[in-house]
Amino acid sequence: MMDEFEIYLRAHSHLDGGNIDRIRSLAIPKALRRNEFLLREGEICRYKTFVIKGLLRTFGKTADGSEHILQFSPEHSWTLDAESYDRQQPSCYNIAAIENSEVLLWPKADFDGLLAAIPQLRSFAEQLISRNIYSGRQRLLTALSATPEEKYQEFVQSFPDFLARLPLHMIAAYLGISLKTLTRIRQAQLRR
Amino acid sequence: MMDEFEIYLRAHSHLDGGNIDRIRSLAIPKALRRNEFLLREGEICRYKTFVIKGLLRTFGKTADGSEHILQFSPEHSWTLDAESYDRQQPSCYNIAAIENSEVLLWPKADFDGLLAAIPQLRSFAEQLISRNIYSGRQRLLTALSATPEEKYQEFVQSFPDFLARLPLHMIAAYLGISLKTLTRIRQAQLRR
Repeated sequence: MMDEFEIYLRAHSHLDGGNIDRIRSLAIPKALRRNEFLLREGEICRYKTFVIKGLLRTFGKTADGSEHILQFSPEHSWTLDAESYDRQQPSCYNIAAIENSEVLLWPKADFDGLLAAIPQLRSFAEQLISRNIYSGRQRLLTALSATPEEKYQEFVQSFPDFLARLPLHMIAAYLGISLKTLTRIRQAQLRR
Repeated sequence: MMDEFEIYLRAHSHLDGGNIDRIRSLAIPKALRRNEFLLREGEICRYKTFVIKGLLRTFGKTADGSEHILQFSPEHSWTLDAESYDRQQPSCYNIAAIENSEVLLWPKADFDGLLAAIPQLRSFAEQLISRNIYSGRQRLLTALSATPEEKYQEFVQSFPDFLARLPLHMIAAYLGISLKTLTRIRQAQLRR
């Protein structure tokens, strides 16, 4: 189970073997069943989380109980609610498994210790945060400006692998359009 | 002109007088006339920018030429296109003055030097980045889930000071709704 993490770090960071061992020695492996929650609204996000296998989603709920998906987190990606984690305050969001998944968890104190001790981990973490900001901006621009058809098209191009793994209502909840609209768009494309 | 910046840093950071002097000694003051651009799509974002006075907006344009506003930057706030600045690549966004404004600019090399030399500046910059991520998430959730009425209501509550300073079409471009819809919402509220 740990090996996937090492492959990922060797491919994406400048961390050497000794530091990779040190980082993964503090990780707590956890298996999540489909639909199981890693974090619920109102709880404090206590762990930095890396997805080894599977697929998770981060979502908020509105007063009417509807779900709005901020992020999908597939294998070889990180997930957490940054605000709740940084401030150790109750979260406004939920993180749950869409598929049976395997994750690695680092308690905040441990991960903070690693960041302080390993400058290459710190600069890698900063890169990830930056990329998150860039893609968040792009996603906001799309949410503000694109038609439902354009939103779906962009999703298909950005995440072709996700289409077969996600129920349609989750794609709709990610795009901010109704299931009815999404179904109409897909049917129109099939007819072409 | 510099004093505003010192007041801001003393109120919001743990920087001492010596470090504040050092930071501001490298700042280039610049005045922007209303509608003047600080950054145009296709240019590289070369400066970390602090707004002393006035109001700027960051926006993207879509193929049909319409403008979508990602951020308003009033006095005592920072602005830049992070992706273009970090990577020194052409920007996809524009930053322009809505009012006559005064800003301080730090060339990237100078600001990077300050961040490396002053740990308190670095931790202050990290705090700003984090807050940006939290508010970006909240804004995305609103963009995905809220009705036009709710979006306007949230804007009025979050930025009461902006209402009198912004033309309606810019509020609409920030909320991702049409000017017609915004006008209808405001008229309905006045009638109540």
